[in-house]
Amino acid sequence: MSQGALPGFRDFYPEQMATRNYLMSVWRDVARKYGFVEYDGPPLEPLDLYTRKSGEEIVGQLYNFKDKGDRDVALRPEMTPTLARMVAAKANALRKPIRWFSMPQLFRYERQQKGRLREHFQLNADIVGEASVVADAELLALAIDVMRAVGLTASDVRARVSDRHLLTSLLAEVGVKPTETAAVFAAIDKVGSEPRDVTLGKVEKAVSGVEARRGVARVLERTSDLNALAAEFRGSTDVMEAVTHMREYLNFLDALGVGDWVDFDLSIVRGLAYYTGTVFELFDAKGEFRAICGGGRYDDLLSSIGGVDLPALGFGMGDVVLTEILRSRNLLPTPEFGTDYWVAADDESMLPDVMTVAGRLRAKSRSVEYALKSQSLSRQLKTASTVGVKQVVLLRRDDYAKGKITLKTLADGSERSIALDAFLNTL
Amino acid sequence: MSQGALPGFRDFYPEQMATRNYLMSVWRDVARKYGFVEYDGPPLEPLDLYTRKSGEEIVGQLYNFKDKGDRDVALRPEMTPTLARMVAAKANALRKPIRWFSMPQLFRYERQQKGRLREHFQLNADIVGEASVVADAELLALAIDVMRAVGLTASDVRARVSDRHLLTSLLAEVGVKPTETAAVFAAIDKVGSEPRDVTLGKVEKAVSGVEARRGVARVLERTSDLNALAAEFRGSTDVMEAVTHMREYLNFLDALGVGDWVDFDLSIVRGLAYYTGTVFELFDAKGEFRAICGGGRYDDLLSSIGGVDLPALGFGMGDVVLTEILRSRNLLPTPEFGTDYWVAADDESMLPDVMTVAGRLRAKSRSVEYALKSQSLSRQLKTASTVGVKQVVLLRRDDYAKGKITLKTLADGSERSIALDAFLNTL
Repeated sequence: MSQGALPGFRDFYPEQMATRNYLMSVWRDVARKYGFVEYDGPPLEPLDLYTRKSGEEIVGQLYNFKDKGDRDVALRPEMTPTLARMVAAKANALRKPIRWFSMPQLFRYERQQKGRLREHFQLNADIVGEASVVADAELLALAIDVMRAVGLTASDVRARVSDRHLLTSLLAEVGVKPTETAAVFAAIDKVGSEPRDVTLGKVEKAVSGVEARRGVARVLERTSDLNALAAEFRGSTDVMEAVTHMREYLNFLDALGVGDWVDFDLSIVRGLAYYTGTVFELFDAKGEFRAICGGGRYDDLLSSIGGVDLPALGFGMGDVVLTEILRSRNLLPTPEFGTDYWVAADDESMLPDVMTVAGRLRAKSRSVEYALKSQSLSRQLKTASTVGVKQVVLLRRDDYAKGKITLKTLADGSERSIALDAFLNTL
Repeated sequence: MSQGALPGFRDFYPEQMATRNYLMSVWRDVARKYGFVEYDGPPLEPLDLYTRKSGEEIVGQLYNFKDKGDRDVALRPEMTPTLARMVAAKANALRKPIRWFSMPQLFRYERQQKGRLREHFQLNADIVGEASVVADAELLALAIDVMRAVGLTASDVRARVSDRHLLTSLLAEVGVKPTETAAVFAAIDKVGSEPRDVTLGKVEKAVSGVEARRGVARVLERTSDLNALAAEFRGSTDVMEAVTHMREYLNFLDALGVGDWVDFDLSIVRGLAYYTGTVFELFDAKGEFRAICGGGRYDDLLSSIGGVDLPALGFGMGDVVLTEILRSRNLLPTPEFGTDYWVAADDESMLPDVMTVAGRLRAKSRSVEYALKSQSLSRQLKTASTVGVKQVVLLRRDDYAKGKITLKTLADGSERSIALDAFLNTL
């Protein structure tokens, strides 16, 4: 008889649950500061919601099956398709721009990697219905502010930003053919993780024109320097338009007070399809962990999934990497299971009195425990200290008959006698 | 292209999400008052976790399938098997009694009933490792306190309590054979919803002895009167022991301050297997809705599912019925999407200044919105009032150059000029 969860799934014992709740409360608080409101959808969705966006090949990574009504269904691997579906269903009724966030549990069947999780929780924040780059800055500022709220600094975490338009216009400018662009994107996507010759080798394979290859190399030499790119390609109206857009983005991020977290990095591509404008990723500065967060603008997605043409942008931030980083930096708060009071009595027959006092304390919103059966006082006090309660409300038979209780502080054993009613009135 | 969720699944738009979050925050607060700590398990579990407890017939109601690793898995239809599994896995390390709660989303494929939900959220609270009836009282008090916390009263909701031991000992006393008990239980389970003759007909069918049938009728005449039962069966030691136990239970519920919500009702059986002692259900007093909550003691379950022999008791309280009742009583709070401040400027070129002020307000934990593109002041103010913001932080070009802003209250249009730094210091 197995006592374990399925491989890749987590049990959240109270300690792990406290960490999850801590992270979610930070996510909620920061999203609220940016005027985002929470939504959620079902964890089970029609399969075609995902194949419509990502093609049939996604099915290999899904928890999909036929339900008892013969419907093809899947556990959600990501939230954006649900968002698109929900927004499309009420597109006219919703005030735009929509600022929504959600904290769904997501599921992916990762076949090879043993030990890798098959579920995680993810903060999803999206703005729908606003094409201005101000929205792009607002969204990334939210993601960065989460880092701040959990105690990380701009030396711990870097936000790398790029823009698909800029990269596309650069490639067009140097003579890469539209049919070759996807392969070059794929090569550039790996710039951070592969040696330069490997990248150049891929470019050579992808790009037919010799001039164009040299041009891509010129771009690759300047992936982290927007000014250098602007100087090199100042003759191209398209490139300069995209440069101006990127400069606005960076300026707005400065205005919002998060500029010092942000690095321009043209090698941030984030997959091949999907994104249409700004893209960004949050990484730990030392590069020890996988990406904390990724997102960007996907202006065409709502129309392709939801059938409603609205500009949109969003990000996802998982709980797993963020928790790992916080743990490594000692930034996870110690879970507090703070029971406010333990009620005890020096006479075993007084259990009903103990319960009465517990009930009255709870009516004052205090958290209260007591021994759930008749026990000696020393036993009761011992348990109280094990539980981590700081104060014991002690009923002594003679005192209690006169309406009095004793407040005992466990740390130093000090006691204070007080009328029960007076004590309750102070709460 | 369908824009809907799967049949029986809910989309939580911000308004519905606010209601769900409200309910969950009440659940959390009340559970915390009783010293319960939160846990969670995976929504997907090995199928045999459920068949082991409920037999193969449960599979017809499950979302079950084979995953890509050829494992038989199912979306969780209830939380108790996961609890049993998790407790069993760490039985020795956990301090007993364990007081845990969870708020899982649960899934059942209900084949016939169209329009009926196939998922819901459920507060699960369980105490593991305590056989004393004090624990039974503690658990029911928690459930009743949730009712109080959402604004319901003892005239709105009744807790009906019974005890399997009492019923079993009564049936044994009047001569019902052990093999006949289950069928009599099933008949009694329907006492509230079927005419008396139907119940008696079922009893006649189930019970072979004529005396025993008359005895069951004598019990059935006294299902809501513990004293009458005690008087009638005072000669039976077993019955009187169970009566004493029930009286203790009721006295402890009185002590905890929830006695006025509780009715003794021997017809509360709650299914056939599973429960071994006290059982209870919460209903709206008018009987308009399905049960709000059901639970009781299941001392044998952990050993049968988890392989660890610990007494245990718990309840489940779903979000759907409770929300329906609160809506019918007008007790659902109006969702507040309270953005604290809207920042605006009387000059369209001041958008970066607007963003700077927004960033500084957010650094003070205030929720802030502003127009995500350059707009006329009148347009900005109009949106602010649509959003429901109460105060606008208005930047007037000349004042702002001197470090001043205007606080504008939208309700009456009143304005107050103040230095930005001074204003931020008040927050």
